[in-house]
Amino acid sequence: MNIGFVGLGKMGHGMAQNLISAGHAVTVWNRTASRGNDLQKLGAQVAASPAECARTGTVITMLADDAALESAVFGENGILKALPAGGLHISSSTISVALSTRLTAAHVAAHQSYVAAPVFGRPEAAAAKKLFVVAAGTAADLSRCQPIFDAIGQRTFIAGAEPHSANTIKVLGNFLIATTIESFGEAFALARKSGIAPEKFLEILTGTTFTAPFHQNYGGIISREAYEPAGFAAKLGLKDMRLVLQAADAEGVPLPIASVVHDRFLSAVGRGNGEKDWSVIAKLAAEDAGLK
Amino acid sequence: MNIGFVGLGKMGHGMAQNLISAGHAVTVWNRTASRGNDLQKLGAQVAASPAECARTGTVITMLADDAALESAVFGENGILKALPAGGLHISSSTISVALSTRLTAAHVAAHQSYVAAPVFGRPEAAAAKKLFVVAAGTAADLSRCQPIFDAIGQRTFIAGAEPHSANTIKVLGNFLIATTIESFGEAFALARKSGIAPEKFLEILTGTTFTAPFHQNYGGIISREAYEPAGFAAKLGLKDMRLVLQAADAEGVPLPIASVVHDRFLSAVGRGNGEKDWSVIAKLAAEDAGLK
Amino acid sequence: MNIGFVGLGKMGHGMAQNLISAGHAVTVWNRTASRGNDLQKLGAQVAASPAECARTGTVITMLADDAALESAVFGENGILKALPAGGLHISSSTISVALSTRLTAAHVAAHQSYVAAPVFGRPEAAAAKKLFVVAAGTAADLSRCQPIFDAIGQRTFIAGAEPHSANTIKVLGNFLIATTIESFGEAFALARKSGIAPEKFLEILTGTTFTAPFHQNYGGIISREAYEPAGFAAKLGLKDMRLVLQAADAEGVPLPIASVVHDRFLSAVGRGNGEKDWSVIAKLAAEDAGLK
Amino acid sequence: MNIGFVGLGKMGHGMAQNLISAGHAVTVWNRTASRGNDLQKLGAQVAASPAECARTGTVITMLADDAALESAVFGENGILKALPAGGLHISSSTISVALSTRLTAAHVAAHQSYVAAPVFGRPEAAAAKKLFVVAAGTAADLSRCQPIFDAIGQRTFIAGAEPHSANTIKVLGNFLIATTIESFGEAFALARKSGIAPEKFLEILTGTTFTAPFHQNYGGIISREAYEPAGFAAKLGLKDMRLVLQAADAEGVPLPIASVVHDRFLSAVGRGNGEKDWSVIAKLAAEDAGLK
Repeated sequence: MNIGFVGLGKMGHGMAQNLISAGHAVTVWNRTASRGNDLQKLGAQVAASPAECARTGTVITMLADDAALESAVFGENGILKALPAGGLHISSSTISVALSTRLTAAHVAAHQSYVAAPVFGRPEAAAAKKLFVVAAGTAADLSRCQPIFDAIGQRTFIAGAEPHSANTIKVLGNFLIATTIESFGEAFALARKSGIAPEKFLEILTGTTFTAPFHQNYGGIISREAYEPAGFAAKLGLKDMRLVLQAADAEGVPLPIASVVHDRFLSAVGRGNGEKDWSVIAKLAAEDAGLK
Repeated sequence: MNIGFVGLGKMGHGMAQNLISAGHAVTVWNRTASRGNDLQKLGAQVAASPAECARTGTVITMLADDAALESAVFGENGILKALPAGGLHISSSTISVALSTRLTAAHVAAHQSYVAAPVFGRPEAAAAKKLFVVAAGTAADLSRCQPIFDAIGQRTFIAGAEPHSANTIKVLGNFLIATTIESFGEAFALARKSGIAPEKFLEILTGTTFTAPFHQNYGGIISREAYEPAGFAAKLGLKDMRLVLQAADAEGVPLPIASVVHDRFLSAVGRGNGEKDWSVIAKLAAEDAGLK
Repeated sequence: MNIGFVGLGKMGHGMAQNLISAGHAVTVWNRTASRGNDLQKLGAQVAASPAECARTGTVITMLADDAALESAVFGENGILKALPAGGLHISSSTISVALSTRLTAAHVAAHQSYVAAPVFGRPEAAAAKKLFVVAAGTAADLSRCQPIFDAIGQRTFIAGAEPHSANTIKVLGNFLIATTIESFGEAFALARKSGIAPEKFLEILTGTTFTAPFHQNYGGIISREAYEPAGFAAKLGLKDMRLVLQAADAEGVPLPIASVVHDRFLSAVGRGNGEKDWSVIAKLAAEDAGLK
Repeated sequence: MNIGFVGLGKMGHGMAQNLISAGHAVTVWNRTASRGNDLQKLGAQVAASPAECARTGTVITMLADDAALESAVFGENGILKALPAGGLHISSSTISVALSTRLTAAHVAAHQSYVAAPVFGRPEAAAAKKLFVVAAGTAADLSRCQPIFDAIGQRTFIAGAEPHSANTIKVLGNFLIATTIESFGEAFALARKSGIAPEKFLEILTGTTFTAPFHQNYGGIISREAYEPAGFAAKLGLKDMRLVLQAADAEGVPLPIASVVHDRFLSAVGRGNGEKDWSVIAKLAAEDAGLK
C-alpha cells in the first residue's frame, strides 16, 4: 500500500519503520524533518507537509497531543483538504474523545474515512512490532486498515463502530495504570515507614497477587526510587489524566480516583518533575508521609 | 507435630484440613462447634476452648477480626494463659497492626513465641493448599513454623523480624486489590456511558496490560454486574480499609486513595450491600454516574 | 451615559433596570426579546442584536456561560466588530478565566477597552442594587465604569489590572461557597444519623461560629431538605466547579476539595437534580450515608 | 457550689478562674500542679488527685484527649470511684463520641450523673467568659449545670438528652472550621499563582460573602502566612479530624471532605508543623501548587 505517516516521535518512528519493513510504500512527515533521515535510507519518501502524506490516500497520524493533530489536519497544508475523497485517516495519537468526535464529523463531511486506532505499548514495543492496537470505525474502514495493523502490532482489538470508543478506552487504560502507580506509591510509603524493606515488599506483591508485567515494572521503579530516565514522562501522564477527566465530565461520570491522581501529576509537574517517569508521583506520596 | 487450630471459618477449615492431611495431630476449636465435625472424622480432636488448643504447645489462630482474636487470646479460657512457656502462637487472621504489636509484647512477657502469618488467597485456595503465607517473626520462631506453612500454602514469604510487618503487608495487599476494583468500577461506568460494551472493554483490558488473574476475576464480575454470591464480602472489605487507614494514621502516612475506597465501602454497606462481593463498590460508581 | 446591556436573565434584568433608574440611556438585547418588554416601558431601547448595543460605545454583557458570551462577542452581529474604537466592554458574566484572557487580547487588538466585572449576589440583590462588583482592568478603564458600578451595586472591589483576575476571584468565591455547602451536607448527614435534630444542629452552628448570612441560608435549606425552588441551580454549580478546576489546572494548582465538590455536582445533575438548588448536593451526602 | 475542676490547660485555667470569680468554691487539679498556683491565691483549693476534686460532688473535666480523661476517670485515684452517688461529672474536653458513650454507661452504673458540655471558643474566650457551651444530658442533670455554664460562657445550647450528641456536634464544628481553612488554603494558592495579591483577595472575600469572624481570622493568617504562634495547634487539628472520622465510621457516614483534610493534617504534622497553627495546612496547599 501507499501510506503516509505523520509524526515520527518515539512511538511513530518505530511504527513507520515496521510499515516499511512490511513492504509498504511509506511517505513520512515530521515537524523536525531530520527524524526521517534514517527512514529515507530504508526507502521512505520524506514529505514537506502532512498534506503530501495525505495525498497517498491513506494517512496515519501519531502526534503528541490535540494541538499537534489539529494543526496537521485542519491547518495549512493539512490532511483534511489534501486527502482524496474515499481516502482514509487512521489516528493513533492519544487525543481527546472530543477531538476524535470532531474528526469523525469532518472526514464524513469530506467523504473520507476515519478510524481511531490508539495503541498500547512503550517505544520498545513500537519498535519490536509488539503494540496492541485498539481500533474503532465502520467494519468496511477497519478491514482496509488490517494490513497496516498487522504491520505495526501483535494484536488488534475492535472497540466498536464509533471511532471515539477507541479513544475512550485508551485514556481509561492509562487512567487504570496511573491508579496502580499511585496506589503503589501510597503503599510503599506506608511499608517504608513501617520498617519493611521495599524490595521485600515488592517481592511479596509480585509473587502473590500483582503478577502483571506492569506491576513488576512500576513496582520496581518505585522500590528503587529510580524515576529517570522516563519511559513515559509525568507531563504526559498529566495530559492523559486531563483527557480522561474531560471525557468523564462530558459523559457525567464522577471519577474520584482520577481526580486524586490528576492532582498528584499536577503537583509533580509543578515541582519540576515533568520530564521524569510518570511513576514519580510515588515520590510525592512518600514526601507527604514525611519521608526523606 | 501437635497443633491447635482456633477458628474454622471459610479459610480456617481448609487450612486445618490440610494440616491433618499432612500428618499433624490437630486439635480444633470453633465458636460454633459443629464446624469441626467433619474434621473430627478425619482424625482431629475437638477442643472445648482456645485454651485446650493452646496446651498442645503450638496454636494457630484464624479468626474474623480483632475482637474475636482478643477474646480467644486474652479472654476466659484463652490462649495466653494456657500456652506453655516456650509455646508458639501463629496468628493468620487479618487483624490490625496495633493488635499484632500488642500480641508480640504479651507473648514475649509470657516467655512464649509469636509469629504473624497472614495468608493471601480465597477459600478455594485454602482448601487446595494454594495459599501464599506472609510470615514475620524471629528467625528461630519462623523455622519452627515452616512445616506448618508447607502444609497449608504453596509458598512462604518472610516479611521481616517484627511480626507486625506481615500484618501491614496483608492490609496493604488488600488495599491494592480494592483500589483496582474501585478504579475498574469507575472505568466501566465511563465505558458504559460512552456506549462501549462492557465485555468488549474487559477483553481489551485483560488482553493488553491488565493480565493478572485478579484483573480477570474482578473485571469479569463488574462487567457482568454479578456481585452475588460473595467471594469476599463487602463488609470485610470495609474492615480491611479501616485496618489500613489505622495503620497509616499511626505511621503518619496519608493514603488519599484508601480514603476514597473506604468511603465507598462505607456507603455500600450502609445501603445494604454488606454481604455482597466487595467488588459491589463498582455498582456505586455506576449509580453515581446516573446509570440504571 | 449611553449604555448597551446584553443578557436579561435573572441577574441581568435587575441590573439593567437599575441602570435605567439611575438615569442612563439603556439599549437592551436578549435572545428571547420579550424579556425586555417591561424595560421598554421604563424607557429602554430594545435592540435587534448585540451589535446594536455595542454601537452605544459602552456595552455590558451578563450571559449564562462561555458559549453565550462568545456568540455575542465574536458571532454574527457581534460586539467586537460593532464596538467603536475607544469603546468599552464590561463583562459581568461568570465565565472562564481563559475566555476573559482571550477577550482582553481581542479588544486590545481592536483598540477597545475591556473590563471584567463579575458580581456577587443573588437575583434579589441584583434587583435591589445590593450586588458586590469585583472589577479588574486598567485604572483608566475602571474609572469610566464607576458610574455604572454605582448604579448596580452596593460596593465595588478592584481586583487588579488584569481583567482575568476578577474572573478568577469570582469562580474561587463560588468554589468556597460550594465547599461550605458540601461540608454542611456531610455534617448534617452525620448529625442526623447520630440522632441530633437538624434544626437544633443548625441553631448551634449559626449561633456560635458560622454566623455569615450564607451559613444561615444554606444551613436552613439543608436542615429542612427544601431544595426547590432553586436560588442558584445545581447545573450552574457544576458549571462553576468546571471553571475553577480549569483555571486551577492551567495554573498548576491542585484543588482536592474542588474535585470532590465537582464530582458531587456531576452526580447530582446526572441523577436529575440539575434544576434544584445547588445545595441539593447535601442530599447526595445523606444518601451515601444510607439516609432515607 | 462546691466544684472540682480537673485540667488547667489553656482553656481550663480560664474556666476555673471564672468559676472562682462567680463565687463558687473550687478545688482544682492539674497533672503539673504549678498551673494551679495563681488560682490558689484567688481562693481555690489545690487537690492532689482527680479523686479529691470528685469528692466535692460536682466535677468538671477539661483535658487534652481521650487518654488523659480515661486516666482521670478510670485510673488510680480517679473520678469514678470517688464521686459520691448522685454526684455529677461535667465533661468539657473534646473527646471521642465513643468515650462519651462509655462514660455515660459507667456513671449510670455508679448511680452518678454525666453531662457532656464541650465548649466553642479559644483560650481568650475562655478567659473572658465568652465561651459557647454545647451541653447534652438529661433535663434534670442539665438544670444542675446551669449556674456553672453561666459562670464560664456567654450562651448555652442544649443539644439533646444523650450526652454523646454534644461531643458529635463539637467534632463536627471543628471539622467545618477545618474545611473552611483547607478551602481557603486552596483558593489562596490559586489566587497567588494567578497574580492576585493575597490581601486584596482577603478583602474581597470578607467584604462580600465570607463575613464571619473566623473567615477574617483564618483568612488573615493565610494571607500573611503567619502560622506562628498557634492559636490552635495543627496536632490538635489532626486529633479532631480523627475524632470526626471515627464518629462517622461508627455511624456509617462517608465524609469525603474530612478525609482530605485529615490527610492534610497528617502530612503537616509529619513534616514538622505540629505545633504551628492548624491553618498551616494552607501552606501545604501552596507547596503542592509549586509555590515558594
